Amino acid sequence: MASTKPESSQTSPSVDENSSEPLNLSKKQVKKEAQKAERLRKQQEVTAAAAVESAEADPFSGNYGDILTEEIQSKAISGRRWTEIGSLDIELAGSTVLIRGAAQTIRPVSKKMVFLVVRHYVSTVQCVLVINKECVSPQMVKFATGLSKESIIDIEGVVSIPKDPIKGTTQQVEVQVTKLFCVNRAVPNLPINIEDAARSEMEFEKAEQTGEQLVRVGQDTRLNYRVLDMRTPANQATFRIQCHVENIFRRFLLSEGFVGIHTPKLVPGSSEGGAAVFKLDYKGQPACLAQSPQLYKQMAICGGFGRVFEVGSVFRAEDSYTHRHLCEFVGLDVEMEIKEHYFEVCDIVDRLFVAMFDYLNENCKKELDAINRQYPFEPLKYLRKTLRLTFLEGVKMLKEAGVEVDPFGDLNTEAEKKLGQLVREKYDTDFYILYRYPLAVRPFYTMLCYDDPAYSNSFDVFVRGEEIISGAQRIHLPELLTKRAEACGIDVKTISTYIDSFRYGAPPHGGFGVGLERVVMLFCALNNIRKTSLFPRDPQRLVP
Amino acid sequence: MASTKPESSQTSPSVDENSSEPLNLSKKQVKKEAQKAERLRKQQEVTAAAAVESAEADPFSGNYGDILTEEIQSKAISGRRWTEIGSLDIELAGSTVLIRGAAQTIRPVSKKMVFLVVRHYVSTVQCVLVINKECVSPQMVKFATGLSKESIIDIEGVVSIPKDPIKGTTQQVEVQVTKLFCVNRAVPNLPINIEDAARSEMEFEKAEQTGEQLVRVGQDTRLNYRVLDMRTPANQATFRIQCHVENIFRRFLLSEGFVGIHTPKLVPGSSEGGAAVFKLDYKGQPACLAQSPQLYKQMAICGGFGRVFEVGSVFRAEDSYTHRHLCEFVGLDVEMEIKEHYFEVCDIVDRLFVAMFDYLNENCKKELDAINRQYPFEPLKYLRKTLRLTFLEGVKMLKEAGVEVDPFGDLNTEAEKKLGQLVREKYDTDFYILYRYPLAVRPFYTMLCYDDPAYSNSFDVFVRGEEIISGAQRIHLPELLTKRAEACGIDVKTISTYIDSFRYGAPPHGGFGVGLERVVMLFCALNNIRKTSLFPRDPQRLVP
Repeated sequence: MASTKPESSQTSPSVDENSSEPLNLSKKQVKKEAQKAERLRKQQEVTAAAAVESAEADPFSGNYGDILTEEIQSKAISGRRWTEIGSLDIELAGSTVLIRGAAQTIRPVSKKMVFLVVRHYVSTVQCVLVINKECVSPQMVKFATGLSKESIIDIEGVVSIPKDPIKGTTQQVEVQVTKLFCVNRAVPNLPINIEDAARSEMEFEKAEQTGEQLVRVGQDTRLNYRVLDMRTPANQATFRIQCHVENIFRRFLLSEGFVGIHTPKLVPGSSEGGAAVFKLDYKGQPACLAQSPQLYKQMAICGGFGRVFEVGSVFRAEDSYTHRHLCEFVGLDVEMEIKEHYFEVCDIVDRLFVAMFDYLNENCKKELDAINRQYPFEPLKYLRKTLRLTFLEGVKMLKEAGVEVDPFGDLNTEAEKKLGQLVREKYDTDFYILYRYPLAVRPFYTMLCYDDPAYSNSFDVFVRGEEIISGAQRIHLPELLTKRAEACGIDVKTISTYIDSFRYGAPPHGGFGVGLERVVMLFCALNNIRKTSLFPRDPQRLVP
Repeated sequence: MASTKPESSQTSPSVDENSSEPLNLSKKQVKKEAQKAERLRKQQEVTAAAAVESAEADPFSGNYGDILTEEIQSKAISGRRWTEIGSLDIELAGSTVLIRGAAQTIRPVSKKMVFLVVRHYVSTVQCVLVINKECVSPQMVKFATGLSKESIIDIEGVVSIPKDPIKGTTQQVEVQVTKLFCVNRAVPNLPINIEDAARSEMEFEKAEQTGEQLVRVGQDTRLNYRVLDMRTPANQATFRIQCHVENIFRRFLLSEGFVGIHTPKLVPGSSEGGAAVFKLDYKGQPACLAQSPQLYKQMAICGGFGRVFEVGSVFRAEDSYTHRHLCEFVGLDVEMEIKEHYFEVCDIVDRLFVAMFDYLNENCKKELDAINRQYPFEPLKYLRKTLRLTFLEGVKMLKEAGVEVDPFGDLNTEAEKKLGQLVREKYDTDFYILYRYPLAVRPFYTMLCYDDPAYSNSFDVFVRGEEIISGAQRIHLPELLTKRAEACGIDVKTISTYIDSFRYGAPPHGGFGVGLERVVMLFCALNNIRKTSLFPRDPQRLVP
């Protein structure tokens, strides 16, 4: 592998690990830094000829340097074997390995020795570069010291077992570096330091006691530089857990005979009604973005699929700027035929989520620990058989606790939170189903209770006092559906295809919808839904 | 279970199985039919009192009738056990079963006997209703005869083994009906007959020879009444295969260390550039719908996820009205770090799709047969190790076959089709990778070839002569990326966050994107992508 040797590495800003100077940069500054790096790179190219000359003075000049651009343009397949940092362990002691990762920290101990912590995915390993007579020159140590943090590097070295356990890396072996190449340089001053972004509240408290000044990275800054923020252990874990949640959701439903479907997000008119829709022009026709797959998943039931689920984007143009609302999120939706009772839907909710929580607790310990280290939380309490309370039982519990609630209205966020506390105290669970909601607070397609049309065959599901699921039996009788739509002020002409679907023989059915981001947020007791969306969208944020 | 007994069933139009009258109805007619059915239902209610009276004359009046609305409003959980139609087999002979399904056909043999074919999901069973002294009255046979096709019915009966094999049902047992309740009546005249929608070209050819007139249901009519069209065996199979394709895609990638992510569909500015975007107003900011998750999945790679995939909606406002373009489809997207060469991405494509095709052939025989019966097709030919040809090799093959192609341009649909034929003849495969495309025809973020900047580290993958996958190594060097964006006429200010992502240490990477609907269409050699989208969106269709 060819390489240039940047003699001018001393011109790059020195990297001071203990610097407490706030490094959050504006976009202008980032650009400036980028230009600086570019100048540096050009300078390196210009001095390449000189480097070749001085390389003669360094017999190990072939062991380090910046990789030439053409080398990373798929020039050749070398056949070399790469080792994942996560699989570096004592069994490899004595072996020569080739690894690639980000230079998370670069800590020169002297002019003869530098420690590098290299990270890939969630794994980190300590690499040691010491001047020796076999392969490492003083220039090579200088090159390493001059690397900017987060640069992507290739290291060849021998795995060794250190005397003392290594603090601060996931892997408990060291790599004695023999070769070091920089694949891609990061700008010398990053807008966010990963260490800062990864700090827990406890670290800040400790620092306050010792008088140490730490940089606090705000939520907005994190989101502005999301690709850096994503690299923290807690974020790597959060989005891996999100992936698990979706997998368990799918796997469970597939095993129960559900079919995964996809319904359109571009829909005519105004979706299910209401103002909170994003409108657009569709080839001259008024259209909007689906607020949920509701009408379409029901049509799939009318189409004979029996049991369906969908994982897809959901759009809400609401102006809610809260910790739990997004303008775009991932909906986990279920719809199924029922034989007699919408409790058949509740049974699926019950078994699905108990299976999900069990799986996460059993199989995602590493990820949960990573989140816990930065954002400590109590494990979710849930019962083997999920508690079910009627809405009126909930109202009664609240009343007894001094909170008056309209028995024909909805619960507000505060009442929900309070009820969550009361249920926890009484039943020892953070997860329960509240059913038989007042009809007035449910969508037009919700089936009425057989014995009291003021109430409906519907339910919400709560985690830690916050709603994560809404579900119900749906009206499958076209006349009743039309009547209810009209009563709710919906122009039935705009949903005629939907209503007609029930005229061709429609089975009784029900279903529910869940927000993927909310499940992750509430399972891990994170305080902001923006932490569980890779690139969140709220009324004020459309970028990046 | 309570029930009303409609004495007036003779007023519903007689159902003639052999009617060759075209039954495709306009929306107005559907409405009219609906009103007719509604009148009928009301009439039934009015005569309910009379029915009760005459019920006294029918000792078995409790064994049949329309279920009261309240019965299907989750009134009670009876504890009765339901049997799935698909699990009715000879082992159940002699047992009493309770089933629910759609009355697919209602064939009265005499005033004493009626055959019902009941369908649930993709399974059908023949049910026989004969007057007897234990439970079936003449009125009950009349009630059954008067049911409209596709109505949802509950049947209780005893499983029996018929002397001769039953043609036209999936289950090879009969049910001797003892109870029959209608859960939900379909309108008497459906806009599409399922039998018509399910006919193969062969049936039409046969009918032409015998002079029989069959109703042909056009693609547009199918889509207008999609919930009926969906019920054909071929469509039930198609969308189950679509679900399998997605599952295999996910499962394979998860097993290879990929993380499933979700990126926003609401994006600022104009997505990746180009005119074919749906624009909208996002809380006062100009926004559009993502044409692909391209920029965001690359940012996830910059964010340290290493290997990611996404299944999500993709929006293209193109005016293409072809058999293979949709304005909204489901994208299967992959992005991954590469160590040395974008062939690492091709390797994933190769192994993923061979595994997928193997799985479908081995595990979806029933579904493939169902599609084959209506739309006969040759099984896909593919090699254990996928063929890879360079773009220029393709150009040469075409030239030798007399088709001149610009070696620096793109292949048009015809040339692709022709090349597919040539490759099939020469290499005996319908599935191959064409790589090293001219740079000019690839997006700005595509990495240039190290040895010739007129070509790029990119590839397309073809199935039966049509492109289904596009992939490439991406440019991870911010300066080169900026230069290429500018050269392609893109305002780099609008994608500054994306370009900046590569300034913080970005690994070499590549990826690809596939259209879910195209995979299913081409694997099954269907001639129209509208057949593999539940509710397709094209420049002329936004409804249903």
